[in-house]
Amino acid sequence: MSDPVPPLTAPTRHSAGPRRSEASHAAILDAAEAILAERGSGGLTFEAVARRAGAGKPTLYRWWPNRTALLLEVYDRRKHRELPDHDTGDLAGDLLAVLADLWRFWRETPAGRAYAGIIAEAQQDDAARAVIAGQWTAPNFSLTPIFDRALARGDLTDAGEALTLREYVAAMNWFRLLTGRLDPADLPGLVATLIAGRTARRG
Amino acid sequence: MSDPVPPLTAPTRHSAGPRRSEASHAAILDAAEAILAERGSGGLTFEAVARRAGAGKPTLYRWWPNRTALLLEVYDRRKHRELPDHDTGDLAGDLLAVLADLWRFWRETPAGRAYAGIIAEAQQDDAARAVIAGQWTAPNFSLTPIFDRALARGDLTDAGEALTLREYVAAMNWFRLLTGRLDPADLPGLVATLIAGRTARRG
Repeated sequence: MSDPVPPLTAPTRHSAGPRRSEASHAAILDAAEAILAERGSGGLTFEAVARRAGAGKPTLYRWWPNRTALLLEVYDRRKHRELPDHDTGDLAGDLLAVLADLWRFWRETPAGRAYAGIIAEAQQDDAARAVIAGQWTAPNFSLTPIFDRALARGDLTDAGEALTLREYVAAMNWFRLLTGRLDPADLPGLVATLIAGRTARRG
Repeated sequence: MSDPVPPLTAPTRHSAGPRRSEASHAAILDAAEAILAERGSGGLTFEAVARRAGAGKPTLYRWWPNRTALLLEVYDRRKHRELPDHDTGDLAGDLLAVLADLWRFWRETPAGRAYAGIIAEAQQDDAARAVIAGQWTAPNFSLTPIFDRALARGDLTDAGEALTLREYVAAMNWFRLLTGRLDPADLPGLVATLIAGRTARRG
């Protein structure tokens, strides 16, 4: 039964189950985040991340189809750590609070430039672009609970309208980030104009 | 009086006045457009454009502070040649017509990828980003006459609201371009949701 020749891939990696897998996933994200901090986005290759995390490149490819997907998950994890949800009981109030946090996060940490870089890089790679294109409709996207609550309260009654408004907010965030215009003084006007009259019309 | 050594820069370039200057400006844009078509955005250097146009690099720098500004003017010139304005007498109608043209132009010609490339490249260069940030408020921007007419007709009564709506439209255009989602079937919903109730509220 014993085999003196070690297998090419350690079987424990495959048999350790979800707990080991989650730890490895987190270790890879930690390694990627450390490399980003030290060497910037240009230094983040799958090779460098795998070496630092003590993982195999195939493991990375199992979870992330490309560099953009990995960069985006590192970015998202940090964003979720640093930005709380805000439940103010009101659509405009929620949007103002969450967007003020997000714009500050983009302005005052390297995250803004990093995220703009992810969008820019994805323009040369259709698979990467598909990754960022799906982000704003994901259940864990920061705007999702805001519009879900607005529908639950009856502030908005049409799910299609809620989704389109959410996309306008995501689009404006990108536009302001990519044109370097993240002035928080603009937020009340932007939110009020988008939401104007919607709840009142139904009130 | 005669000088057998030719001057380093031809003095006629400086003394020929606005007509010569305009011709030279157009010749440089033509040269840049030809280089773009042949070699793509990566081949467009000020050096290559100057050589092909028979102009000096200082002449290029007089009109365009950087590559992005030149790329953007080539792109804008072609856009204005190919896309007509549409005066349908109605804000939603104008938007639908102009956006359908723009999205088709982006989908079906190299212009879409070129413009996405300009936005991406500008993320690494603050001066270039300032150029693209100013584009949507320019008088010759394609959305400007649409919102000016809506104000003139009284469809919109608040110039600040008109400007913010214009920015949401510009933002959504970028978002759809950069995420590769230029499906014309989405346009009626996007326009209707943004405009919904605005003219009715005042009607």
